[in-house]
Amino acid sequence: MARGALATTTAALALLAAGAAGAQSPAVEAGRQKAQMCAACHGPLGLGSAPDAPHLAGQPEIYLAAQLKAFRSGVRRHEQMNVMAKALSDEDIAALAAWYASLKIEVQPPR
Amino acid sequence: MARGALATTTAALALLAAGAAGAQSPAVEAGRQKAQMCAACHGPLGLGSAPDAPHLAGQPEIYLAAQLKAFRSGVRRHEQMNVMAKALSDEDIAALAAWYASLKIEVQPPR
Repeated sequence: MARGALATTTAALALLAAGAAGAQSPAVEAGRQKAQMCAACHGPLGLGSAPDAPHLAGQPEIYLAAQLKAFRSGVRRHEQMNVMAKALSDEDIAALAAWYASLKIEVQPPR
Repeated sequence: MARGALATTTAALALLAAGAAGAQSPAVEAGRQKAQMCAACHGPLGLGSAPDAPHLAGQPEIYLAAQLKAFRSGVRRHEQMNVMAKALSDEDIAALAAWYASLKIEVQPPR
């Protein structure tokens, strides 16, 4: 019965598996620490708290890295993000992308 | 007991309330229909299926609308999105933003 309820809940949610990076990998851990400076706008677990700050949790690693590089180069424009990304090395970007991609997210379908 | 387990589960998840738009609002429904053209890359419920396609489910409505307008004007560059957004009216953008913002997402903290 409990298992049935769990299966129903699982089926009712579109579950997103985390990226390839395991929660224990060094990059993920480095990213978790580096991400403390991102938390004011993007939340401690990558859920944005400002109306123009996107959620980063569970985003594809490739996407996250590409956007950080675009902010760093100025190709993608955002006053705060262009400043924040300026200071990031390629290694920092890889770590941050690994961290946010490692967080599992679920979406609940509308009734 | 069941209530205790539920409370624990709820506490263990960082729950994100959906935006202001209710699931029944006309804009959300219009957006749901319009979003069918987005599903190939962003999934039927806003979870991206391509490595460079971000998840849109639960993103802030203001952020979603701003990004679609930036893609439409070309300020934010992405080959496919610039083409897709070109055809969108302000009303389309508002509806799409309302739809994706209406989807509730949860993030599971790493152990």
